[in-house]
Amino acid sequence: MCSPAIIEHVKKRISRRNLLRGIGVTGAAGAVGCVNRSSSEGGIGKNSLPDSVSFSRVVDLSHTLHPDFPAWFQGGVEMTTRGNRTFVPPAIVDVKPVFEWEHEKVNLNQITYWEHVGTHMDAPSHFSEGSTVDEIPAEDLVLPLAVVDIRDRAAQDPLALLTLEDLKEWESQNGRIPERACVAMDSGWAKHVDTPRYKSLDAEGKHRQPAFHIDAVEFLMEERNVVALAVDTFSFDNQHSPGSDVHYKWLGDDRWGIENVNNLGDVPPVGATVVVGQPSIKGGSGGPNRVLALV
Amino acid sequence: MCSPAIIEHVKKRISRRNLLRGIGVTGAAGAVGCVNRSSSEGGIGKNSLPDSVSFSRVVDLSHTLHPDFPAWFQGGVEMTTRGNRTFVPPAIVDVKPVFEWEHEKVNLNQITYWEHVGTHMDAPSHFSEGSTVDEIPAEDLVLPLAVVDIRDRAAQDPLALLTLEDLKEWESQNGRIPERACVAMDSGWAKHVDTPRYKSLDAEGKHRQPAFHIDAVEFLMEERNVVALAVDTFSFDNQHSPGSDVHYKWLGDDRWGIENVNNLGDVPPVGATVVVGQPSIKGGSGGPNRVLALV
Repeated sequence: MCSPAIIEHVKKRISRRNLLRGIGVTGAAGAVGCVNRSSSEGGIGKNSLPDSVSFSRVVDLSHTLHPDFPAWFQGGVEMTTRGNRTFVPPAIVDVKPVFEWEHEKVNLNQITYWEHVGTHMDAPSHFSEGSTVDEIPAEDLVLPLAVVDIRDRAAQDPLALLTLEDLKEWESQNGRIPERACVAMDSGWAKHVDTPRYKSLDAEGKHRQPAFHIDAVEFLMEERNVVALAVDTFSFDNQHSPGSDVHYKWLGDDRWGIENVNNLGDVPPVGATVVVGQPSIKGGSGGPNRVLALV
Repeated sequence: MCSPAIIEHVKKRISRRNLLRGIGVTGAAGAVGCVNRSSSEGGIGKNSLPDSVSFSRVVDLSHTLHPDFPAWFQGGVEMTTRGNRTFVPPAIVDVKPVFEWEHEKVNLNQITYWEHVGTHMDAPSHFSEGSTVDEIPAEDLVLPLAVVDIRDRAAQDPLALLTLEDLKEWESQNGRIPERACVAMDSGWAKHVDTPRYKSLDAEGKHRQPAFHIDAVEFLMEERNVVALAVDTFSFDNQHSPGSDVHYKWLGDDRWGIENVNNLGDVPPVGATVVVGQPSIKGGSGGPNRVLALV
C-alpha cells in the first residue's frame, strides 16, 4: 500500500521515468502497469513445483488482524481524490455482530476492511491494471521460500534497505535463489507490531520501516525470475523510494507480494515452502490472508 | 451456517435433547456448546504432523467469492432477532472501490461480507461458545485429507446423507481414516454452484443439499478423532437435521469445518494434505478462506 501523499505525485513520477527510460509507451497507465513485462519471464500462471516437496513442520507467517493493527489509514485520512478534498474514514477491520450466541445461539459477524491491512497480499492490480487476486491460480500460491536476514542493519536504521549486495551475500551462503521463489525480507520488524516502533514515525509524522531497494527488486525480477516478494513491514517501499517504485515495478510486471508477514525468524533461509492462503474474492486488489511456511 | 428459521427452534431442541440424553447440565448454552467434550479427544491445538509429508501437485479447493455466490441470506431476510421482526440486508460480499487505477493509479477496495459465505470456515464459535478463528493454531490448519464420494446417491437425491455405512465402506477400501484428519464429503455439488441446483429449493422454498448424517459425525468425533469436516455444499446439515444437530455437535466440541469446497473430484480418497488458508481475524466465527490440497 502506498501512502495517500504518493498518489498526488504519481503522474509526475510517470513522466520522469518515461524520460529516463526512453520508453515509447502511449499513456501513463501503460508506462506504470507494464514497464518491464517484456524484459522478464515472470508473472502469473507459469508455476511448476519441483518433483516432490516434503515438510514436517508448520510455521504461521501471519499476524492476527484486529481494529488496532498498524495500517496506513489509522484514524482516518484527509486526501485528494478525484479533485475533491475528502475525509476518508478508516476501515482497518470492523467486526460487527449480526447474530450472537447469547441471543440466537449462533455467532455470525459482518466483517468490513480495506484490503491492504494485516498480513495481506498486494495483487498486481493494486498498483497496475494487472491481475486481481482471483486471477492468480492456486499453484502459484505454493512457492519455495528464501528468507533474507537484514535484522542487524534494521535494528540500527528504520529506513534500512534490502540491497542487491544482500542478495549476492545470501546466494554466496545459500546457493542460487530457487526458480519461481518467494523472497522474504526479515528485518525483525514483526516483533514491533504492537509498539510505536512498527511505524517509527519521523518528525513529520511519516512512516519509517525497512524495505526493498529497487535494484534488488530488478535483480529478482530480471535475473532470478522470483514470483513473490514478502516483507515483515507494511510496505515494500519506504522513504528511499517515495514514489512507490518497488510497488509499481513489481506489481506492474504482474507479480505480487505479501506485507506484514510474521515469524520469519522461525524458518530457515532456504528449504521451506510458503503457502499463501489468499481468499479468492472476485476483483480484489489483495487482502488479508493466512500465510504458512511448511518446513 | 443455519437458516434463520432454525434459530427460533433452538431452545425447544435443547430441552428435548437434554431429556433424551439425560445430561445434567445447567443452562442451555452448556448443553449445546459442550455436549461431548468429555467423550472425545479432539478439538483444537493437539495436532502433530506425520514425520514427513510430501506432495508434487496443488489443487484449488476454493470457489471464487462474488456477490451472486449462493448463500443463505441472498436477497435479504426478514427474521426475528431479540424479539423484534427485522429486515436484514444481505452482505454476501460487497466490493466497493476506495481508490481506482483510473483516478489514483492505485486500486484498493473496501470489502464487506457476512462471515459464512463462499468457501469458508465454520469456527467452533459459530455454533458454540468455543474457539474463534484466531484461536485455531496454524499447525491445525494442515491436515491429512480423506474424501468420501457420495456422488451417485446425491445425483438421485438432493437430501442424500453421508452415513456411517459410507465411512465403513470407505475404510474397507482405503484403510482407517488418518488420525486428526479432515474428512470431506464429495457429493458432486460443486459443479452446480452457478445453477439453481445448488440450492435445489423445494416447494416451500427451503434449501436442499447433501449433508452429513449425525451418526457419521459422532463416529468421526468419538472413534476416529477427526479435526475438521468439509462439504461441497453450503451446510453440514440438511432437512434431515433441521435443528442443525451436526453443527451443534461438531462445533460444540471445539472442532471446525469448511463449507462450499470445490474440486474434490480432483484429489484422491486418501493421501492428500489439506491446507486451510484461514485469515486470522480476531473474534471471527469463521469466514472466507483459501483451501488448497497438496497431492
